[in-house]
Amino acid sequence: MTKKAVILSSGGIDSTTAMAMAMDMGYEVYSLSFRYGQRHSVELECAVKVARHLKATDHKIVDIDLRQFGGSALTDDINVPKHADVDDIDPEEIPITYVPARNTIFLSYAMAWAEVLKAEAVFIGVTAVDYSGYPDCRPEFINAFQTMANLATKTGVTGEAVLSIETPLINLSKSRIITAGRKLGVDYGLTISCYDPDEQGKSCGHCDSCLHRIKGFEEAGIPDPTPYKS
Amino acid sequence: MTKKAVILSSGGIDSTTAMAMAMDMGYEVYSLSFRYGQRHSVELECAVKVARHLKATDHKIVDIDLRQFGGSALTDDINVPKHADVDDIDPEEIPITYVPARNTIFLSYAMAWAEVLKAEAVFIGVTAVDYSGYPDCRPEFINAFQTMANLATKTGVTGEAVLSIETPLINLSKSRIITAGRKLGVDYGLTISCYDPDEQGKSCGHCDSCLHRIKGFEEAGIPDPTPYKS
Repeated sequence: MTKKAVILSSGGIDSTTAMAMAMDMGYEVYSLSFRYGQRHSVELECAVKVARHLKATDHKIVDIDLRQFGGSALTDDINVPKHADVDDIDPEEIPITYVPARNTIFLSYAMAWAEVLKAEAVFIGVTAVDYSGYPDCRPEFINAFQTMANLATKTGVTGEAVLSIETPLINLSKSRIITAGRKLGVDYGLTISCYDPDEQGKSCGHCDSCLHRIKGFEEAGIPDPTPYKS
Repeated sequence: MTKKAVILSSGGIDSTTAMAMAMDMGYEVYSLSFRYGQRHSVELECAVKVARHLKATDHKIVDIDLRQFGGSALTDDINVPKHADVDDIDPEEIPITYVPARNTIFLSYAMAWAEVLKAEAVFIGVTAVDYSGYPDCRPEFINAFQTMANLATKTGVTGEAVLSIETPLINLSKSRIITAGRKLGVDYGLTISCYDPDEQGKSCGHCDSCLHRIKGFEEAGIPDPTPYKS
């Protein structure tokens, strides 16, 4: 029987690469995205295209309303911070784009679907290299979540399907992620990274996420196929 | 400053008693309920009445769609099992009314709200006595969740508001829960326990949850104010 994995997909570089890696490792791939009160829907359109491009077996979009609780520039009417250069980002500070409990909620839904599918893995494209600012992207958090998950589920407790939270990008820089994804045939023209794209889906080029993307493509020596506002 | 707690409220005996206990411990109470594809909405109406009765500071109902994943008699078109007597329930078996990852998802949302409120506690009315069948009601699970939660959040990592997952009912039988709640002035006439009530909100009297409730009131020597189908 083919082994199954649920992949958290945002339509960005990291989750798309993680999905390609899961596929390459022989998993049947179930893509999972969230409509969580983001201020733009471009990333969900990208996630749909990516799931089709990488031939995921299924793709679900779950509606969750994190705006009810507030507390983030990604879901509230707070301005997304812009910088002239990637070096202006303070790597020690937890950014205002942090959404409370977001990865925990995302992983909890992935765990629910994994249990129903009897999947052995959930892939999440977190990386501890370029984005150490988010507490829920660190290996300590991922390990604690995995321990909790196998105590929470019927399939974990009975041993029928012990769940592994896979983070294949955890130690990779953005440029190495891009290089690895290109080798696996990923079309990054389908992905988006910007926290604040315009109505045509063009990236701003100055939010933390754009700056990391631009630097990653430059270091990888590969042209970035994304359209930026001039 | 008053300390704050988020209470997971289902409108049943356990979560209502946990809320009364949090209040009694001096917490400002924020009640949180979910519309999660339950087959009946009576329990949400009860949760609203309970929050008003116990004077919660705020009460939010979050929509989550667990039916997308399936796998439970509480959200799918599977019949809720009925028994003639409470002793017919196998305490070792994980019941079909188990909803995959439900408590994990509920606690993740509670954690998100707690972080925004800078609350120090989340109360969940799980008990390891009458309902050992659900893996996500056990102390091992709760402890693992708490560890994970404090690694996941900005307020946990910075130490600004370390979160405690409080389970004041964990070692109490249903009759002791009812006795304790009555001492704190809880009106159990506002609560419902049934997994399969009729359209008038009358309880079936034969699902696992009704049988535990009936036995609890009998053992406590207190009349059960709930209307049952005859």
